[in-house]
Amino acid sequence: MIHTTSTVRVRYSETDAMAITHHASYVPWLELARIDMLDQIGLPYKGLEEAGYYLPVLGVQLRYIQPSEFDDKLVIHCYLKQRPTLRVKIEYEIYNGETLITTGSSDHAFTDKSGRPARPPKYFTDYFKDKLE
Amino acid sequence: MIHTTSTVRVRYSETDAMAITHHASYVPWLELARIDMLDQIGLPYKGLEEAGYYLPVLGVQLRYIQPSEFDDKLVIHCYLKQRPTLRVKIEYEIYNGETLITTGSSDHAFTDKSGRPARPPKYFTDYFKDKLE
Amino acid sequence: MIHTTSTVRVRYSETDAMAITHHASYVPWLELARIDMLDQIGLPYKGLEEAGYYLPVLGVQLRYIQPSEFDDKLVIHCYLKQRPTLRVKIEYEIYNGETLITTGSSDHAFTDKSGRPARPPKYFTDYFKDKLE
Amino acid sequence: MIHTTSTVRVRYSETDAMAITHHASYVPWLELARIDMLDQIGLPYKGLEEAGYYLPVLGVQLRYIQPSEFDDKLVIHCYLKQRPTLRVKIEYEIYNGETLITTGSSDHAFTDKSGRPARPPKYFTDYFKDKLE
Repeated sequence: MIHTTSTVRVRYSETDAMAITHHASYVPWLELARIDMLDQIGLPYKGLEEAGYYLPVLGVQLRYIQPSEFDDKLVIHCYLKQRPTLRVKIEYEIYNGETLITTGSSDHAFTDKSGRPARPPKYFTDYFKDKLE
Repeated sequence: MIHTTSTVRVRYSETDAMAITHHASYVPWLELARIDMLDQIGLPYKGLEEAGYYLPVLGVQLRYIQPSEFDDKLVIHCYLKQRPTLRVKIEYEIYNGETLITTGSSDHAFTDKSGRPARPPKYFTDYFKDKLE
Repeated sequence: MIHTTSTVRVRYSETDAMAITHHASYVPWLELARIDMLDQIGLPYKGLEEAGYYLPVLGVQLRYIQPSEFDDKLVIHCYLKQRPTLRVKIEYEIYNGETLITTGSSDHAFTDKSGRPARPPKYFTDYFKDKLE
Repeated sequence: MIHTTSTVRVRYSETDAMAITHHASYVPWLELARIDMLDQIGLPYKGLEEAGYYLPVLGVQLRYIQPSEFDDKLVIHCYLKQRPTLRVKIEYEIYNGETLITTGSSDHAFTDKSGRPARPPKYFTDYFKDKLE
Protein backbone atom coordinates (compact mmCIF):
# COMPACT_ATOMS: atom_id res chain seq x y z
CA MET A 1 0.00 0.00 0.00
CA ILE A 2 1.17 3.51 -0.79
CA HIS A 3 0.24 5.95 1.97
CA THR A 4 1.04 9.65 2.03
CA THR A 5 -0.27 12.63 3.96
CA SER A 6 -0.91 16.23 2.93
CA THR A 7 -2.04 19.25 4.89
CA VAL A 8 -4.64 21.89 4.06
CA ARG A 9 -5.81 24.84 6.02
CA VAL A 10 -9.45 25.78 5.49
CA ARG A 11 -9.68 29.02 3.52
CA TYR A 12 -12.39 31.57 4.29
CA SER A 13 -13.59 31.21 0.70
CA GLU A 14 -14.14 27.49 1.36
CA THR A 15 -16.70 28.09 4.12
CA ASP A 16 -20.43 28.70 3.67
CA ALA A 17 -23.34 30.41 5.39
CA MET A 18 -23.61 27.53 7.91
CA ALA A 19 -20.21 28.81 9.16
CA ILE A 20 -18.61 25.46 8.29
CA THR A 21 -16.55 24.29 5.33
CA HIS A 22 -18.80 23.89 2.29
CA HIS A 23 -19.00 20.21 1.32
CA ALA A 24 -17.84 20.91 -2.25
CA SER A 25 -14.57 22.39 -0.95
CA TYR A 26 -13.35 18.91 0.00
CA VAL A 27 -13.28 17.72 -3.63
CA PRO A 28 -10.31 19.91 -4.67
CA TRP A 29 -8.57 18.79 -1.45
CA LEU A 30 -8.74 15.14 -2.51
CA GLU A 31 -7.26 16.16 -5.86
CA LEU A 32 -4.51 18.14 -4.15
CA ALA A 33 -3.75 15.14 -1.91
CA ARG A 34 -3.44 12.64 -4.78
CA ILE A 35 -1.29 15.03 -6.80
CA ASP A 36 0.86 15.46 -3.71
CA MET A 37 1.05 11.65 -3.36
CA LEU A 38 2.40 11.37 -6.91
CA ASP A 39 4.98 14.07 -6.09
CA GLN A 40 6.02 12.36 -2.89
CA ILE A 41 6.63 9.03 -4.65
CA GLY A 42 8.55 10.76 -7.44
CA LEU A 43 5.98 10.36 -10.24
CA PRO A 44 4.59 13.90 -10.53
CA TYR A 45 1.24 14.38 -12.24
CA LYS A 46 2.65 17.28 -14.21
CA GLY A 47 5.17 14.88 -15.79
CA LEU A 48 2.33 12.53 -16.75
CA GLU A 49 0.50 15.36 -18.51
CA GLU A 50 3.69 16.42 -20.27
CA ALA A 51 4.14 12.80 -21.43
CA GLY A 52 0.64 12.94 -22.95
CA TYR A 53 -1.40 11.27 -20.23
CA TYR A 54 -4.45 12.42 -18.31
CA LEU A 55 -6.05 10.90 -15.25
CA PRO A 56 -9.66 12.08 -15.53
CA VAL A 57 -12.01 11.40 -12.64
CA LEU A 58 -14.61 8.68 -13.22
CA GLY A 59 -16.19 8.95 -9.82
CA VAL A 60 -15.87 10.53 -6.43
CA GLN A 61 -17.45 9.56 -3.11
CA LEU A 62 -17.37 11.54 0.11
CA ARG A 63 -18.75 10.83 3.57
CA TYR A 64 -18.85 13.77 5.98
CA ILE A 65 -18.58 12.64 9.60
CA GLN A 66 -17.79 15.93 11.33
CA PRO A 67 -17.77 19.45 9.90
CA SER A 68 -14.63 21.55 9.77
CA GLU A 69 -14.29 25.32 10.05
CA PHE A 70 -12.34 28.26 8.74
CA ASP A 71 -8.66 28.05 9.67
CA ASP A 72 -8.76 24.38 10.71
CA LYS A 73 -5.55 22.62 9.78
CA LEU A 74 -6.55 19.27 8.30
CA VAL A 75 -4.42 16.27 7.41
CA ILE A 76 -5.45 14.23 4.40
CA HIS A 77 -4.32 10.63 4.32
CA CYS A 78 -4.16 9.24 0.82
CA TYR A 79 -4.08 5.50 0.08
CA LEU A 80 -3.30 3.62 -3.12
CA LYS A 81 -3.92 -0.08 -2.50
CA GLN A 82 -4.10 -1.65 -5.96
CA ARG A 83 -1.56 -1.45 -8.77
CA PRO A 84 -2.66 1.24 -11.28
CA THR A 85 -3.69 -0.19 -14.67
CA LEU A 86 -6.23 1.37 -17.00
CA ARG A 87 -8.02 2.28 -13.78
CA VAL A 88 -6.78 3.81 -10.54
CA LYS A 89 -8.65 3.91 -7.23
CA ILE A 90 -7.52 6.20 -4.44
CA GLU A 91 -8.92 6.35 -0.91
CA TYR A 92 -8.83 9.23 1.55
CA GLU A 93 -9.22 9.97 5.23
CA ILE A 94 -9.28 13.53 6.51
CA TYR A 95 -8.34 14.21 10.13
CA ASN A 96 -8.80 17.31 12.25
CA GLY A 97 -6.32 16.62 15.04
CA GLU A 98 -7.15 13.12 16.29
CA THR A 99 -10.66 13.14 14.83
CA LEU A 100 -11.51 11.46 11.54
CA ILE A 101 -13.89 13.96 9.96
CA THR A 102 -14.27 12.77 6.34
CA THR A 103 -13.65 9.65 4.27
CA GLY A 104 -13.68 9.41 0.51
CA SER A 105 -12.49 7.71 -2.62
CA SER A 106 -11.96 8.60 -6.25
CA ASP A 107 -11.78 6.48 -9.39
CA HIS A 108 -9.70 7.45 -12.38
CA ALA A 109 -8.94 6.28 -15.91
CA PHE A 110 -5.65 6.61 -17.72
CA THR A 111 -6.28 8.32 -21.05
CA ASP A 112 -4.32 10.05 -23.79
CA LYS A 113 -4.89 13.75 -24.54
CA SER A 114 -7.85 12.92 -26.78
CA GLY A 115 -9.60 11.13 -23.94
CA ARG A 116 -9.08 7.57 -25.20
CA PRO A 117 -8.15 4.91 -22.62
CA ALA A 118 -4.39 4.40 -22.54
CA ARG A 119 -2.10 2.10 -20.62
CA PRO A 120 0.01 4.09 -18.11
CA PRO A 121 3.64 4.63 -19.23
CA LYS A 122 6.21 1.95 -18.35
CA TYR A 123 8.13 4.12 -15.85
CA PHE A 124 4.87 4.56 -14.01
CA THR A 125 3.81 0.90 -13.81
CA ASP A 126 7.37 -0.21 -13.07
CA TYR A 127 7.41 1.85 -9.92
CA PHE A 128 4.53 -0.13 -8.41
CA LYS A 129 5.72 -3.60 -9.53
CA ASP A 130 7.07 -4.82 -6.21
CA LYS A 131 5.03 -2.47 -4.07
CA LEU A 132 1.40 -3.25 -4.95
CA GLU A 133 -0.61 -6.19 -6.25
CA MET B 1 -41.57 10.09 -6.46
CA ILE B 2 -40.80 13.79 -6.65
CA HIS B 3 -38.99 14.67 -9.90
CA THR B 4 -37.89 18.14 -10.95
CA THR B 5 -35.43 19.52 -13.48
CA SER B 6 -33.06 22.47 -13.37
CA THR B 7 -30.75 23.95 -15.95
CA VAL B 8 -27.14 25.11 -15.65
CA ARG B 9 -24.81 26.51 -18.22
CA VAL B 10 -21.15 25.66 -17.71
CA ARG B 11 -19.23 28.77 -16.60
CA TYR B 12 -15.70 29.36 -17.82
CA SER B 13 -14.58 29.41 -14.19
CA GLU B 14 -15.97 25.87 -13.83
CA THR B 15 -13.61 24.41 -16.47
CA ASP B 16 -10.04 23.22 -15.94
CA ALA B 17 -6.79 22.81 -17.85
CA MET B 18 -8.13 19.63 -19.55
CA ALA B 19 -10.56 22.04 -21.28
CA ILE B 20 -13.52 20.24 -19.69
CA THR B 21 -15.68 21.00 -16.68
CA HIS B 22 -13.72 20.35 -13.50
CA HIS B 23 -15.27 17.42 -11.62
CA ALA B 24 -15.68 19.48 -8.43
CA SER B 25 -17.90 21.96 -10.27
CA TYR B 26 -20.73 19.42 -10.38
CA VAL B 27 -21.11 19.38 -6.60
CA PRO B 28 -22.57 22.92 -6.34
CA TRP B 29 -24.85 22.01 -9.27
CA LEU B 30 -26.41 19.14 -7.31
CA GLU B 31 -26.97 21.57 -4.45
CA LEU B 32 -28.51 24.12 -6.78
CA ALA B 33 -30.79 21.40 -8.23
CA ARG B 34 -32.09 20.19 -4.86
CA ILE B 35 -32.64 23.76 -3.65
CA ASP B 36 -34.53 24.37 -6.88
CA MET B 37 -36.57 21.19 -6.26
CA LEU B 38 -37.64 22.52 -2.86
CA ASP B 39 -38.62 25.81 -4.52
CA GLN B 40 -40.59 24.08 -7.23
CA ILE B 41 -42.61 22.04 -4.73
CA GLY B 42 -43.27 25.12 -2.61
CA LEU B 43 -41.03 24.26 0.36
CA PRO B 44 -38.09 26.63 -0.18
CA TYR B 45 -34.81 25.85 1.59
CA LYS B 46 -34.49 29.45 2.66
CA GLY B 47 -37.74 29.07 4.60
CA LEU B 48 -36.37 25.99 6.33
CA GLU B 49 -33.27 27.91 7.43
CA GLU B 50 -35.41 30.79 8.64
CA ALA B 51 -37.50 28.29 10.64
CA GLY B 52 -34.29 27.10 12.31
CA TYR B 53 -33.48 24.01 10.27
CA TYR B 54 -30.40 23.01 8.33
CA LEU B 55 -29.95 20.14 5.88
CA PRO B 56 -26.20 19.46 6.08
CA VAL B 57 -24.69 17.01 3.63
CA LEU B 58 -23.71 13.63 5.08
CA GLY B 59 -22.43 12.20 1.83
CA VAL B 60 -22.16 12.81 -1.87
CA GLN B 61 -21.48 10.40 -4.72
CA LEU B 62 -20.81 11.27 -8.34
CA ARG B 63 -20.18 9.12 -11.39
CA TYR B 64 -18.83 10.93 -14.46
CA ILE B 65 -19.86 9.19 -17.69
CA GLN B 66 -19.05 11.87 -20.25
CA PRO B 67 -17.28 15.18 -19.79
CA SER B 68 -18.98 18.52 -20.41
CA GLU B 69 -17.46 21.75 -21.66
CA PHE B 70 -17.64 25.50 -21.28
CA ASP B 71 -21.01 26.87 -22.36
CA ASP B 72 -22.78 23.48 -22.44
CA LYS B 73 -26.36 23.79 -21.31
CA LEU B 74 -27.03 20.90 -18.96
CA VAL B 75 -30.29 19.65 -17.49
CA ILE B 76 -30.17 18.22 -13.97
CA HIS B 77 -32.91 15.78 -13.05
CA CYS B 78 -33.47 15.59 -9.32
CA TYR B 79 -35.32 12.70 -7.65
CA LEU B 80 -36.69 12.32 -4.14
CA LYS B 81 -38.00 8.77 -3.74
CA GLN B 82 -38.36 8.25 0.01
CA ARG B 83 -40.29 10.36 2.49
CA PRO B 84 -37.86 12.71 4.29
CA THR B 85 -37.45 11.90 7.99
CA LEU B 86 -34.31 12.56 10.03
CA ARG B 87 -32.53 11.62 6.81
CA VAL B 88 -33.08 12.65 3.20
CA LYS B 89 -31.62 11.00 0.12
CA ILE B 90 -31.68 12.74 -3.26
CA GLU B 91 -30.63 11.29 -6.60
CA TYR B 92 -29.47 13.12 -9.72
CA GLU B 93 -29.03 12.60 -13.43
CA ILE B 94 -27.32 15.23 -15.57
CA TYR B 95 -28.06 15.34 -19.29
CA ASN B 96 -26.29 17.15 -22.10
CA GLY B 97 -28.96 17.06 -24.78
CA GLU B 98 -30.02 13.42 -25.04
CA THR B 99 -26.86 12.11 -23.40
CA LEU B 100 -26.71 11.13 -19.74
CA ILE B 101 -23.31 12.47 -18.69
CA THR B 102 -23.34 12.21 -14.88
CA THR B 103 -25.25 10.45 -12.12
CA GLY B 104 -25.08 11.18 -8.43
CA SER B 105 -26.73 11.14 -5.05
CA SER B 106 -26.53 13.06 -1.81
CA ASP B 107 -27.50 12.17 1.75
CA HIS B 108 -28.63 14.76 4.24
CA ALA B 109 -29.62 15.07 7.88
CA PHE B 110 -32.21 17.40 9.33
CA THR B 111 -30.63 19.39 12.15
CA ASP B 112 -31.30 22.48 14.19
CA LYS B 113 -28.97 25.49 14.02
CA SER B 114 -26.64 23.94 16.59
CA GLY B 115 -26.16 20.85 14.43
CA ARG B 116 -28.26 18.45 16.55
CA PRO B 117 -30.54 16.02 14.67
CA ALA B 118 -34.08 17.42 14.44
CA ARG B 119 -37.31 16.10 13.04
CA PRO B 120 -38.35 18.15 9.96
CA PRO B 121 -41.15 20.66 10.66
CA LYS B 122 -44.75 19.45 10.31
CA TYR B 123 -45.58 21.55 7.22
CA PHE B 124 -42.62 19.85 5.56
CA THR B 125 -43.48 16.23 6.36
CA ASP B 126 -47.20 16.85 5.72
CA TYR B 127 -46.43 17.77 2.14
CA PHE B 128 -44.99 14.33 1.38
CA LYS B 129 -47.62 12.32 3.27
CA ASP B 130 -49.64 11.10 0.31
CA LYS B 131 -46.84 11.52 -2.25
CA LEU B 132 -44.01 9.33 -0.94
CA GLU B 133 -43.60 6.24 1.23
CA MET C 1 -22.87 51.97 -25.86
CA ILE C 2 -23.71 48.28 -25.68
CA HIS C 3 -25.75 47.47 -22.59
CA THR C 4 -27.07 44.03 -21.66
CA THR C 5 -28.38 42.43 -18.47
CA SER C 6 -27.95 38.96 -17.03
CA THR C 7 -29.37 37.30 -13.94
CA VAL C 8 -27.71 35.18 -11.30
CA ARG C 9 -29.09 33.60 -8.20
CA VAL C 10 -26.66 33.31 -5.30
CA ARG C 11 -25.68 29.67 -4.78
CA TYR C 12 -25.15 28.30 -1.29
CA SER C 13 -21.60 27.38 -2.32
CA GLU C 14 -21.00 31.06 -3.10
CA THR C 15 -21.65 32.19 0.49
CA ASP C 16 -19.15 32.24 3.35
CA ALA C 17 -19.03 32.04 7.13
CA MET C 18 -20.18 35.68 7.43
CA ALA C 19 -23.50 34.36 5.97
CA ILE C 20 -23.11 36.64 2.94
CA THR C 21 -21.87 36.04 -0.58
CA HIS C 22 -18.09 35.61 -0.56
CA HIS C 23 -16.46 38.52 -2.41
CA ALA C 24 -14.59 36.20 -4.78
CA SER C 25 -17.90 34.75 -6.03
CA TYR C 26 -18.64 37.98 -7.91
CA VAL C 27 -15.68 37.51 -10.26
CA PRO C 28 -17.16 34.53 -12.15
CA TRP C 29 -20.45 36.49 -12.34
CA LEU C 30 -18.78 39.33 -14.22
CA GLU C 31 -17.34 36.74 -16.61
CA LEU C 32 -20.74 35.11 -17.03
CA ALA C 33 -22.29 38.53 -17.72
CA ARG C 34 -19.77 39.52 -20.42
CA ILE C 35 -20.04 36.10 -22.09
CA ASP C 36 -23.81 36.55 -22.02
CA MET C 37 -23.40 40.03 -23.55
CA LEU C 38 -21.46 38.55 -26.47
CA ASP C 39 -24.23 35.95 -26.91
CA GLN C 40 -26.96 38.57 -26.80
CA ILE C 41 -25.29 40.68 -29.51
CA GLY C 42 -24.70 37.61 -31.68
CA LEU C 43 -20.91 37.34 -31.28
CA PRO C 44 -20.59 34.35 -28.91
CA TYR C 45 -17.33 33.92 -27.03
CA LYS C 46 -17.29 30.24 -27.89
CA GLY C 47 -17.13 31.20 -31.59
CA LEU C 48 -14.17 33.49 -30.87
CA GLU C 49 -12.30 30.63 -29.20
CA GLU C 50 -13.13 28.31 -32.08
CA ALA C 51 -11.78 30.96 -34.49
CA GLY C 52 -8.50 30.93 -32.52
CA TYR C 53 -8.96 33.95 -30.27
CA TYR C 54 -8.79 34.34 -26.53
CA LEU C 55 -9.82 37.30 -24.39
CA PRO C 56 -7.63 36.89 -21.29
CA VAL C 57 -8.27 39.17 -18.34
CA LEU C 58 -5.66 41.88 -17.76
CA GLY C 59 -7.33 43.38 -14.75
CA VAL C 60 -10.44 43.29 -12.63
CA GLN C 61 -11.81 45.83 -10.16
CA LEU C 62 -14.72 45.40 -7.81
CA ARG C 63 -16.36 47.72 -5.31
CA TYR C 64 -18.76 46.13 -2.83
CA ILE C 65 -21.44 48.56 -1.68
CA GLN C 66 -23.92 46.20 -0.06
CA PRO C 67 -23.59 42.48 0.64
CA SER C 68 -25.86 39.89 -0.95
CA GLU C 69 -27.07 36.60 0.49
CA PHE C 70 -27.88 33.05 -0.45
CA ASP C 71 -30.80 32.84 -2.87
CA ASP C 72 -30.77 36.55 -3.78
CA LYS C 73 -31.66 37.07 -7.42
CA LEU C 74 -29.23 39.65 -8.78
CA VAL C 75 -29.24 41.51 -12.08
CA ILE C 76 -25.87 42.28 -13.64
CA HIS C 77 -25.75 45.23 -16.02
CA CYS C 78 -22.88 44.96 -18.46
CA TYR C 79 -21.58 47.97 -20.44
CA LEU C 80 -19.23 48.15 -23.41
CA LYS C 81 -18.53 51.82 -24.16
CA GLN C 82 -15.45 51.84 -26.38
CA ARG C 83 -14.92 50.00 -29.65
CA PRO C 84 -12.91 46.79 -28.96
CA THR C 85 -9.40 46.88 -30.47
CA LEU C 86 -6.39 45.07 -29.05
CA ARG C 87 -7.94 45.97 -25.71
CA VAL C 88 -11.48 45.68 -24.39
CA LYS C 89 -12.87 47.32 -21.26
CA ILE C 90 -16.17 46.22 -19.78
CA GLU C 91 -18.04 47.82 -16.89
CA TYR C 92 -20.57 46.27 -14.55
CA GLU C 93 -23.30 47.19 -12.10
CA ILE C 94 -24.98 44.58 -9.95
CA TYR C 95 -28.44 45.26 -8.58
CA ASN C 96 -30.44 43.48 -5.90
CA GLY C 97 -33.93 44.72 -6.68
CA GLU C 98 -33.65 48.53 -6.85
CA THR C 99 -30.38 48.62 -4.89
CA LEU C 100 -27.01 48.94 -6.57
CA ILE C 101 -24.86 46.56 -4.52
CA THR C 102 -21.64 46.22 -6.55
CA THR C 103 -19.79 47.99 -9.34
CA GLY C 104 -16.84 46.69 -11.29
CA SER C 105 -14.84 46.65 -14.47
CA SER C 106 -12.58 44.26 -16.33
CA ASP C 107 -9.84 44.82 -18.91
CA HIS C 108 -9.05 42.29 -21.60
CA ALA C 109 -6.59 41.72 -24.41
CA PHE C 110 -7.30 40.01 -27.70
CA THR C 111 -4.73 37.25 -28.20
CA ASP C 112 -4.21 34.18 -30.34
CA LYS C 113 -4.06 30.72 -28.77
CA SER C 114 -0.36 31.15 -27.98
CA GLY C 115 -1.07 34.28 -25.96
CA ARG C 116 0.33 36.81 -28.44
CA PRO C 117 -1.67 40.03 -28.96
CA ALA C 118 -3.95 39.72 -31.99
CA ARG C 119 -6.33 42.10 -33.72
CA PRO C 120 -9.96 40.90 -33.25
CA PRO C 121 -11.43 39.20 -36.35
CA LYS C 122 -13.11 41.40 -38.98
CA TYR C 123 -16.66 40.12 -38.32
CA PHE C 124 -16.13 41.16 -34.72
CA THR C 125 -14.87 44.71 -35.29
CA ASP C 126 -17.38 45.26 -38.13
CA TYR C 127 -20.24 44.73 -35.72
CA PHE C 128 -19.21 47.70 -33.58
CA LYS C 129 -18.37 50.08 -36.48
CA ASP C 130 -21.47 52.22 -36.36
CA LYS C 131 -22.33 51.44 -32.74
CA LEU C 132 -19.27 52.52 -30.75
CA GLU C 133 -16.43 55.02 -31.09
CA MET D 1 5.41 49.00 6.75
CA ILE D 2 4.34 45.46 7.59
CA HIS D 3 5.52 42.98 4.95
CA THR D 4 4.92 39.24 5.01
CA THR D 5 5.05 36.47 2.42
CA SER D 6 2.89 33.40 1.89
CA THR D 7 3.13 30.55 -0.57
CA VAL D 8 0.45 28.90 -2.69
CA ARG D 9 0.70 26.11 -5.19
CA VAL D 10 -1.77 26.33 -8.06
CA ARG D 11 -4.44 23.62 -7.70
CA TYR D 12 -5.79 21.85 -10.75
CA SER D 13 -9.26 23.08 -9.77
CA GLU D 14 -7.96 26.65 -9.99
CA THR D 15 -7.09 26.36 -13.70
CA ASP D 16 -9.42 26.90 -16.64
CA ALA D 17 -9.87 25.82 -20.25
CA MET D 18 -7.12 28.22 -21.37
CA ALA D 19 -4.79 25.88 -19.41
CA ILE D 20 -3.80 28.73 -17.10
CA THR D 21 -4.93 29.74 -13.63
CA HIS D 22 -8.43 31.22 -13.80
CA HIS D 23 -8.31 34.90 -12.87
CA ALA D 24 -10.91 34.48 -10.12
CA SER D 25 -8.66 31.98 -8.33
CA TYR D 26 -6.32 34.79 -7.28
CA VAL D 27 -8.96 36.44 -5.09
CA PRO D 28 -8.99 33.71 -2.42
CA TRP D 29 -5.17 33.79 -2.50
CA LEU D 30 -5.10 37.46 -1.52
CA GLU D 31 -7.44 36.60 1.34
CA LEU D 32 -5.26 33.70 2.40
CA ALA D 33 -2.20 35.98 2.29
CA ARG D 34 -3.72 38.71 4.45
CA ILE D 35 -5.04 36.16 6.96
CA ASP D 36 -1.55 34.67 7.03
CA MET D 37 -0.11 38.17 7.59
CA LEU D 38 -2.32 38.62 10.66
CA ASP D 39 -1.14 35.22 11.93
CA GLN D 40 2.50 36.05 11.36
CA ILE D 41 2.26 39.31 13.32
CA GLY D 42 0.39 37.59 16.15
CA LEU D 43 -3.06 39.11 15.58
CA PRO D 44 -4.94 36.18 14.04
CA TYR D 45 -8.14 36.92 12.10
CA LYS D 46 -9.89 34.08 13.88
CA GLY D 47 -9.31 35.90 17.17
CA LEU D 48 -10.82 39.07 15.72
CA GLU D 49 -13.96 37.16 14.70
CA GLU D 50 -14.17 35.55 18.14
CA ALA D 51 -13.90 39.03 19.68
CA GLY D 52 -16.90 40.10 17.59
CA TYR D 53 -15.19 41.84 14.68
CA TYR D 54 -15.40 41.30 10.95
CA LEU D 55 -13.21 42.72 8.20
CA PRO D 56 -15.52 42.65 5.17
CA VAL D 57 -14.06 43.48 1.78
CA LEU D 58 -15.05 46.89 0.37
CA GLY D 59 -13.08 46.54 -2.82
CA VAL D 60 -10.55 44.43 -4.62
CA GLN D 61 -8.29 45.27 -7.58
CA LEU D 62 -6.13 42.87 -9.53
CA ARG D 63 -3.73 43.39 -12.42
CA TYR D 64 -2.59 40.25 -14.25
CA ILE D 65 0.85 40.69 -15.79
CA GLN D 66 1.77 37.10 -16.59
CA PRO D 67 -0.38 33.97 -16.34
CA SER D 68 0.44 31.11 -13.99
CA GLU D 69 -0.22 27.40 -14.45
CA PHE D 70 -1.18 24.27 -12.59
CA ASP D 71 1.43 23.31 -10.00
CA ASP D 72 3.28 26.65 -10.08
CA LYS D 73 4.55 27.58 -6.66
CA LEU D 74 3.78 31.26 -6.15
CA VAL D 75 4.91 33.64 -3.45
CA ILE D 76 2.45 36.33 -2.35
CA HIS D 77 3.95 39.44 -0.81
CA CYS D 78 1.49 41.25 1.41
CA TYR D 79 1.96 44.89 2.46
CA LEU D 80 0.22 46.94 5.12
CA LYS D 81 1.45 50.53 4.86
CA GLN D 82 -1.07 52.61 6.80
CA ARG D 83 -2.21 52.16 10.38
CA PRO D 84 -5.58 50.31 10.40
CA THR D 85 -8.48 52.44 11.59
CA LEU D 86 -12.07 52.06 10.50
CA ARG D 87 -10.54 51.20 7.14
CA VAL D 88 -7.67 48.91 6.18
CA LYS D 89 -5.88 48.81 2.83
CA ILE D 90 -3.64 45.90 1.90
CA GLU D 91 -1.42 45.59 -1.17
CA TYR D 92 -0.15 42.46 -2.85
CA GLU D 93 2.52 41.29 -5.27
CA ILE D 94 2.56 37.73 -6.56
CA TYR D 95 5.83 36.27 -7.82
CA ASN D 96 6.50 33.13 -9.82
CA GLY D 97 10.20 32.66 -9.17
CA GLU D 98 11.82 36.01 -10.00
CA THR D 99 8.90 37.20 -12.12
CA LEU D 100 6.23 39.53 -10.79
CA ILE D 101 3.05 38.07 -12.30
CA THR D 102 0.22 39.87 -10.49
CA THR D 103 -0.34 42.97 -8.37
CA GLY D 104 -3.41 43.81 -6.35
CA SER D 105 -4.96 45.55 -3.41
CA SER D 106 -7.95 45.14 -1.16
CA ASP D 107 -9.89 47.59 1.00
CA HIS D 108 -11.63 46.55 4.18
CA ALA D 109 -13.86 47.99 6.88
CA PHE D 110 -13.85 47.05 10.53
CA THR D 111 -17.40 46.13 11.55
CA ASP D 112 -19.18 44.36 14.35
CA LYS D 113 -21.12 41.14 13.73
CA SER D 114 -24.19 43.10 12.61
CA GLY D 115 -22.18 44.85 9.89
CA ARG D 116 -21.98 48.27 11.58
CA PRO D 117 -18.65 50.12 11.36
CA ALA D 118 -16.61 49.54 14.51
CA ARG D 119 -13.26 50.80 15.74
CA PRO D 120 -10.73 47.92 15.83
CA PRO D 121 -10.06 46.57 19.35
CA LYS D 122 -7.35 48.23 21.43
CA TYR D 123 -4.93 45.28 21.35
CA PHE D 124 -5.11 45.48 17.57
CA THR D 125 -4.45 49.22 17.16
CA ASP D 126 -1.81 49.16 19.91
CA TYR D 127 0.26 46.71 17.91
CA PHE D 128 0.67 49.15 15.03
CA LYS D 129 1.27 52.27 17.16
CA ASP D 130 5.02 52.54 16.70
CA LYS D 131 5.16 50.56 13.48
CA LEU D 132 2.87 52.44 11.07
CA GLU D 133 1.64 55.99 10.60
